[in-house]
Amino acid sequence: MNLEVKPIGIVRSPFKEASGTPIQASMAEGAVGTVEVFGAFADGLKDLDGFDRIWLLYWFDRAAVPRLIVTPYLDDQPHGVFATRAPARPNPIGMSAVRLLRIEGCTLHVAHVDILDGTPLLDIKPYVPTFDAFSNSRAGWCDQALPSGRTHADDRFAL
Amino acid sequence: MNLEVKPIGIVRSPFKEASGTPIQASMAEGAVGTVEVFGAFADGLKDLDGFDRIWLLYWFDRAAVPRLIVTPYLDDQPHGVFATRAPARPNPIGMSAVRLLRIEGCTLHVAHVDILDGTPLLDIKPYVPTFDAFSNSRAGWCDQALPSGRTHADDRFAL
Repeated sequence: MNLEVKPIGIVRSPFKEASGTPIQASMAEGAVGTVEVFGAFADGLKDLDGFDRIWLLYWFDRAAVPRLIVTPYLDDQPHGVFATRAPARPNPIGMSAVRLLRIEGCTLHVAHVDILDGTPLLDIKPYVPTFDAFSNSRAGWCDQALPSGRTHADDRFAL
Repeated sequence: MNLEVKPIGIVRSPFKEASGTPIQASMAEGAVGTVEVFGAFADGLKDLDGFDRIWLLYWFDRAAVPRLIVTPYLDDQPHGVFATRAPARPNPIGMSAVRLLRIEGCTLHVAHVDILDGTPLLDIKPYVPTFDAFSNSRAGWCDQALPSGRTHADDRFAL
Protein backbone atom coordinates (compact mmCIF):
# COMPACT_ATOMS: atom_id res chain seq x y z
CA MET A 1 0.00 0.00 0.00
CA ASN A 2 1.41 3.39 -1.00
CA LEU A 3 0.05 6.34 0.91
CA GLU A 4 0.99 9.79 -0.22
CA VAL A 5 0.80 13.02 1.71
CA LYS A 6 1.16 16.52 0.35
CA PRO A 7 2.20 19.77 2.01
CA ILE A 8 -0.67 22.11 2.85
CA GLY A 9 1.71 24.88 3.88
CA ILE A 10 5.11 25.64 5.29
CA VAL A 11 6.43 26.47 8.77
CA ARG A 12 8.60 29.57 9.26
CA SER A 13 10.76 29.73 12.37
CA PRO A 14 14.04 31.17 13.62
CA PHE A 15 15.66 27.69 13.47
CA LYS A 16 17.73 26.95 10.38
CA GLU A 17 19.32 23.70 11.58
CA ALA A 18 18.69 21.03 14.18
CA SER A 19 21.45 22.16 16.53
CA GLY A 20 20.02 24.70 18.94
CA THR A 21 16.37 24.06 18.05
CA PRO A 22 14.12 23.48 21.07
CA ILE A 23 13.41 19.78 21.52
CA GLN A 24 9.74 20.28 22.17
CA ALA A 25 7.18 23.05 21.90
CA SER A 26 6.94 23.09 25.69
CA MET A 27 10.64 24.02 25.80
CA ALA A 28 10.33 26.74 23.17
CA GLU A 29 8.94 29.49 25.38
CA GLY A 30 10.18 32.53 23.46
CA ALA A 31 10.24 31.06 19.96
CA VAL A 32 7.74 32.65 17.61
CA GLY A 33 7.15 31.82 13.99
CA THR A 34 4.47 31.59 11.36
CA VAL A 35 2.59 28.90 9.57
CA GLU A 36 1.97 29.85 5.95
CA VAL A 37 -1.04 27.85 4.78
CA PHE A 38 -1.33 27.56 1.00
CA GLY A 39 -4.21 29.58 -0.43
CA ALA A 40 -6.02 26.51 -1.74
CA PHE A 41 -6.66 25.45 1.87
CA ALA A 42 -7.72 28.85 3.25
CA ASP A 43 -11.35 27.86 3.82
CA GLY A 44 -10.20 25.10 6.17
CA LEU A 45 -9.03 27.70 8.71
CA LYS A 46 -12.54 29.00 9.51
CA ASP A 47 -13.07 29.16 13.31
CA LEU A 48 -9.51 28.11 14.12
CA ASP A 49 -9.11 31.41 15.97
CA GLY A 50 -10.68 30.70 19.34
CA PHE A 51 -8.23 27.90 20.08
CA ASP A 52 -5.30 28.75 22.35
CA ARG A 53 -3.21 25.93 20.96
CA ILE A 54 -3.14 23.94 17.76
CA TRP A 55 -1.47 20.70 16.75
CA LEU A 56 0.84 20.98 13.80
CA LEU A 57 1.66 17.77 11.95
CA TYR A 58 4.63 18.13 9.67
CA TRP A 59 7.25 16.28 7.69
CA PHE A 60 10.73 15.94 9.22
CA ASP A 61 12.34 16.79 5.87
CA ARG A 62 15.85 17.11 7.29
CA ALA A 63 15.90 14.05 9.57
CA ALA A 64 18.46 11.28 9.27
CA VAL A 65 17.42 7.86 7.93
CA PRO A 66 15.13 6.01 10.33
CA ARG A 67 16.62 4.09 13.23
CA LEU A 68 14.69 1.72 15.46
CA ILE A 69 16.92 2.27 18.50
CA VAL A 70 17.87 5.85 19.30
CA THR A 71 19.53 7.72 22.13
CA PRO A 72 17.24 10.71 22.37
CA TYR A 73 18.24 14.27 23.22
CA LEU A 74 16.82 13.90 26.70
CA ASP A 75 18.75 10.85 27.82
CA ASP A 76 22.08 9.05 27.58
CA GLN A 77 20.40 5.66 27.28
CA PRO A 78 19.10 4.06 24.06
CA HIS A 79 15.35 3.53 23.66
CA GLY A 80 13.08 2.23 20.94
CA VAL A 81 12.24 5.03 18.53
CA PHE A 82 8.50 4.62 19.23
CA ALA A 83 9.22 5.33 22.92
CA THR A 84 10.79 8.66 21.88
CA ARG A 85 9.84 11.71 19.85
CA ALA A 86 13.08 11.57 17.83
CA PRO A 87 12.71 12.67 14.18
CA ALA A 88 14.58 9.73 12.61
CA ARG A 89 11.45 7.53 12.51
CA PRO A 90 10.03 5.11 9.91
CA ASN A 91 7.39 7.69 8.94
CA PRO A 92 9.06 11.04 9.64
CA ILE A 93 5.97 12.84 10.88
CA GLY A 94 6.38 15.39 13.67
CA MET A 95 3.70 16.70 15.97
CA SER A 96 3.79 19.87 18.09
CA ALA A 97 1.21 21.65 20.21
CA VAL A 98 2.05 25.29 19.53
CA ARG A 99 0.38 28.42 20.89
CA LEU A 100 -1.83 30.19 18.36
CA LEU A 101 -1.34 33.95 18.74
CA ARG A 102 -3.44 35.27 15.85
CA ILE A 103 -4.47 34.57 12.28
CA GLU A 104 -4.02 36.98 9.39
CA GLY A 105 -5.44 35.54 6.20
CA CYS A 106 -3.49 32.34 5.55
CA THR A 107 -0.75 33.21 8.04
CA LEU A 108 -0.93 31.79 11.55
CA HIS A 109 1.27 33.55 14.06
CA VAL A 110 2.42 30.95 16.57
CA ALA A 111 4.64 30.70 19.63
CA HIS A 112 6.40 27.78 21.31
CA VAL A 113 7.73 26.71 17.94
CA ASP A 114 10.16 23.75 17.95
CA ILE A 115 10.17 23.25 14.18
CA LEU A 116 12.86 23.93 11.57
CA ASP A 117 12.33 26.83 9.19
CA GLY A 118 10.91 25.64 5.87
CA THR A 119 9.33 22.45 7.22
CA PRO A 120 6.44 21.11 5.08
CA LEU A 121 3.14 21.27 6.97
CA LEU A 122 0.79 18.27 6.66
CA ASP A 123 -2.11 19.06 8.95
CA ILE A 124 -3.51 21.41 11.56
CA LYS A 125 -5.81 20.13 14.27
CA PRO A 126 -7.36 22.09 17.14
CA TYR A 127 -5.95 21.36 20.59
CA VAL A 128 -8.86 20.21 22.73
CA PRO A 129 -8.05 19.49 26.39
CA THR A 130 -10.83 16.89 26.65
CA PHE A 131 -9.21 14.93 23.81
CA ASP A 132 -5.56 15.71 24.44
CA ALA A 133 -4.71 16.65 28.03
CA PHE A 134 -3.83 13.84 30.43
CA SER A 135 -1.72 15.57 33.03
CA ASN A 136 -1.12 12.59 35.28
CA SER A 137 -0.13 10.10 32.60
CA ARG A 138 2.98 8.16 33.61
CA ALA A 139 5.76 8.77 31.07
CA GLY A 140 8.28 5.93 31.49
CA TRP A 141 11.92 6.91 30.99
CA CYS A 142 10.93 10.55 30.34
CA ASP A 143 9.75 10.97 33.94
CA GLN A 144 13.32 10.31 35.09
CA ALA A 145 15.14 12.08 32.27
CA LEU A 146 13.14 15.29 31.91
CA PRO A 147 14.28 17.13 35.06
CA SER A 148 17.96 16.91 34.09
CA GLY A 149 17.61 16.48 30.33
CA ARG A 150 18.65 18.95 27.68
CA THR A 151 16.08 21.34 26.22
CA HIS A 152 17.68 22.01 22.83
CA ALA A 153 18.72 19.67 20.03
CA ASP A 154 22.15 18.85 18.65
CA ASP A 155 22.89 17.31 15.26
CA ARG A 156 22.49 13.63 16.16
CA PHE A 157 19.37 13.20 14.02
CA ALA A 158 20.29 15.68 11.30
CA LEU A 159 20.52 14.62 7.68
CA MET B 1 7.07 17.29 -3.53
CA ASN B 2 5.81 13.74 -3.09
CA LEU B 3 6.00 12.38 0.42
CA GLU B 4 5.18 8.75 0.97
CA VAL B 5 4.27 7.04 4.20
CA LYS B 6 4.06 3.32 4.81
CA PRO B 7 2.11 1.30 7.38
CA ILE B 8 4.18 0.07 10.32
CA GLY B 9 1.31 -2.01 11.65
CA ILE B 10 -2.43 -2.29 11.87
CA VAL B 11 -5.06 -1.35 14.45
CA ARG B 12 -7.59 -3.95 15.61
CA SER B 13 -10.75 -2.72 17.27
CA PRO B 14 -14.41 -3.64 17.73
CA PHE B 15 -15.45 -0.96 15.21
CA LYS B 16 -16.12 -2.17 11.66
CA GLU B 17 -17.66 1.03 10.33
CA ALA B 18 -17.75 4.71 11.18
CA SER B 19 -21.33 4.67 12.54
CA GLY B 20 -21.17 3.91 16.25
CA THR B 21 -17.42 4.42 16.61
CA PRO B 22 -16.43 6.72 19.47
CA ILE B 23 -15.54 10.18 18.16
CA GLN B 24 -12.46 10.48 20.32
CA ALA B 25 -10.30 8.26 22.50
CA SER B 26 -11.51 10.22 25.53
CA MET B 27 -15.07 9.08 24.68
CA ALA B 28 -14.10 5.46 24.18
CA GLU B 29 -13.96 4.42 27.83
CA GLY B 30 -14.70 0.70 27.46
CA ALA B 31 -13.30 0.13 23.99
CA VAL B 32 -10.27 -2.15 23.95
CA GLY B 33 -8.27 -3.26 20.95
CA THR B 34 -4.80 -4.14 19.83
CA VAL B 35 -2.10 -2.57 17.76
CA GLU B 36 -0.25 -5.17 15.71
CA VAL B 37 3.16 -3.75 14.89
CA PHE B 38 4.88 -5.44 11.96
CA GLY B 39 7.86 -7.58 13.00
CA ALA B 40 10.35 -5.44 11.09
CA PHE B 41 9.67 -2.62 13.55
CA ALA B 42 9.75 -4.67 16.77
CA ASP B 43 12.99 -3.12 18.08
CA GLY B 44 11.38 0.31 18.01
CA LEU B 45 9.05 -0.71 20.86
CA LYS B 46 11.82 -1.01 23.48
CA ASP B 47 10.85 0.87 26.69
CA LEU B 48 7.39 1.79 25.41
CA ASP B 49 5.97 -0.08 28.40
CA GLY B 50 6.22 2.42 31.21
CA PHE B 51 4.00 4.91 29.40
CA ASP B 52 0.35 5.04 30.49
CA ARG B 53 -0.73 6.49 27.17
CA ILE B 54 0.62 6.51 23.66
CA TRP B 55 -0.16 8.56 20.59
CA LEU B 56 -1.21 6.54 17.58
CA LEU B 57 -0.91 8.23 14.20
CA TYR B 58 -2.82 6.41 11.51
CA TRP B 59 -4.30 6.65 8.04
CA PHE B 60 -8.03 7.33 7.73
CA ASP B 61 -8.34 4.72 5.00
CA ARG B 62 -12.15 4.81 4.93
CA ALA B 63 -12.71 8.55 5.08
CA ALA B 64 -14.64 10.48 2.46
CA VAL B 65 -12.82 12.80 0.07
CA PRO B 66 -11.40 15.87 1.81
CA ARG B 67 -13.65 18.83 2.48
CA LEU B 68 -12.48 22.21 3.68
CA ILE B 69 -15.73 23.07 5.46
CA VAL B 70 -17.30 20.34 7.57
CA THR B 71 -20.08 20.03 10.09
CA PRO B 72 -18.38 17.87 12.69
CA TYR B 73 -20.03 15.17 14.80
CA LEU B 74 -20.00 17.45 17.83
CA ASP B 75 -21.85 20.41 16.39
CA ASP B 76 -24.61 21.44 14.01
CA GLN B 77 -22.59 24.35 12.66
CA PRO B 78 -20.01 24.18 9.84
CA HIS B 79 -16.35 24.82 10.68
CA GLY B 80 -13.08 24.79 8.78
CA VAL B 81 -11.72 21.25 8.69
CA PHE B 82 -8.51 22.39 10.43
CA ALA B 83 -10.63 23.61 13.35
CA THR B 84 -12.06 20.09 13.68
CA ARG B 85 -10.75 16.55 14.05
CA ALA B 86 -12.95 15.25 11.21
CA PRO B 87 -11.36 12.47 9.11
CA ALA B 88 -12.17 13.94 5.68
CA ARG B 89 -9.00 16.11 5.65
CA PRO B 90 -6.46 16.96 2.94
CA ASN B 91 -3.94 14.58 4.52
CA PRO B 92 -6.11 11.92 6.15
CA ILE B 93 -3.92 11.37 9.20
CA GLY B 94 -5.63 10.59 12.51
CA MET B 95 -4.18 10.98 15.96
CA SER B 96 -5.42 9.37 19.18
CA ALA B 97 -4.03 9.25 22.71
CA VAL B 98 -4.96 5.69 23.75
CA ARG B 99 -4.29 3.94 27.05
CA LEU B 100 -1.50 1.37 26.85
CA LEU B 101 -2.51 -1.67 28.90
CA ARG B 102 0.37 -4.04 28.17
CA ILE B 103 2.74 -5.20 25.44
CA GLU B 104 3.15 -8.80 24.30
CA GLY B 105 5.83 -9.04 21.64
CA CYS B 106 4.63 -6.89 18.76
CA THR B 107 1.08 -6.65 20.09
CA LEU B 108 0.07 -3.61 22.09
CA HIS B 109 -3.09 -4.03 24.13
CA VAL B 110 -4.81 -0.66 24.27
CA ALA B 111 -7.97 0.89 25.66
CA HIS B 112 -9.91 4.04 24.78
CA VAL B 113 -9.74 3.06 21.12
CA ASP B 114 -11.65 5.29 18.69
CA ILE B 115 -10.18 3.78 15.53
CA LEU B 116 -11.75 1.56 12.86
CA ASP B 117 -10.68 -2.08 12.73
CA GLY B 118 -7.99 -2.64 10.12
CA THR B 119 -6.71 0.94 10.08
CA PRO B 120 -3.09 1.30 8.84
CA LEU B 121 -0.78 2.50 11.62
CA LEU B 122 1.81 5.15 10.71
CA ASP B 123 3.54 5.97 13.97
CA ILE B 124 3.58 5.48 17.72
CA LYS B 125 4.82 8.24 20.01
CA PRO B 126 4.94 8.23 23.80
CA TYR B 127 2.42 10.48 25.55
CA VAL B 128 4.44 12.87 27.71
CA PRO B 129 2.38 15.31 29.84
CA THR B 130 5.15 17.94 29.73
CA PHE B 131 4.92 17.96 25.93
CA ASP B 132 1.25 17.23 25.44
CA ALA B 133 -0.99 18.18 28.37
CA PHE B 134 -2.39 21.73 28.44
CA SER B 135 -5.52 21.37 30.54
CA ASN B 136 -6.58 25.00 30.51
CA SER B 137 -6.22 25.61 26.78
CA ARG B 138 -9.23 27.42 25.37
CA ALA B 139 -10.90 25.29 22.71
CA GLY B 140 -13.05 27.61 20.59
CA TRP B 141 -16.32 26.16 19.35
CA CYS B 142 -15.57 22.84 21.11
CA ASP B 143 -15.90 24.47 24.52
CA GLN B 144 -19.53 25.24 23.73
CA ALA B 145 -20.33 22.07 21.80
CA LEU B 146 -18.72 19.37 23.93
CA PRO B 147 -21.15 19.33 26.88
CA SER B 148 -24.13 18.58 24.64
CA GLY B 149 -22.36 17.04 21.67
CA ARG B 150 -22.60 13.48 20.49
CA THR B 151 -19.94 10.98 21.57
CA HIS B 152 -20.20 8.47 18.72
CA ALA B 153 -19.83 8.89 14.98
CA ASP B 154 -22.37 8.48 12.19
CA ASP B 155 -21.61 7.95 8.50
CA ARG B 156 -21.20 11.61 7.45
CA PHE B 157 -17.47 11.20 6.77
CA ALA B 158 -17.55 7.59 5.60
CA LEU B 159 -16.29 6.60 2.18
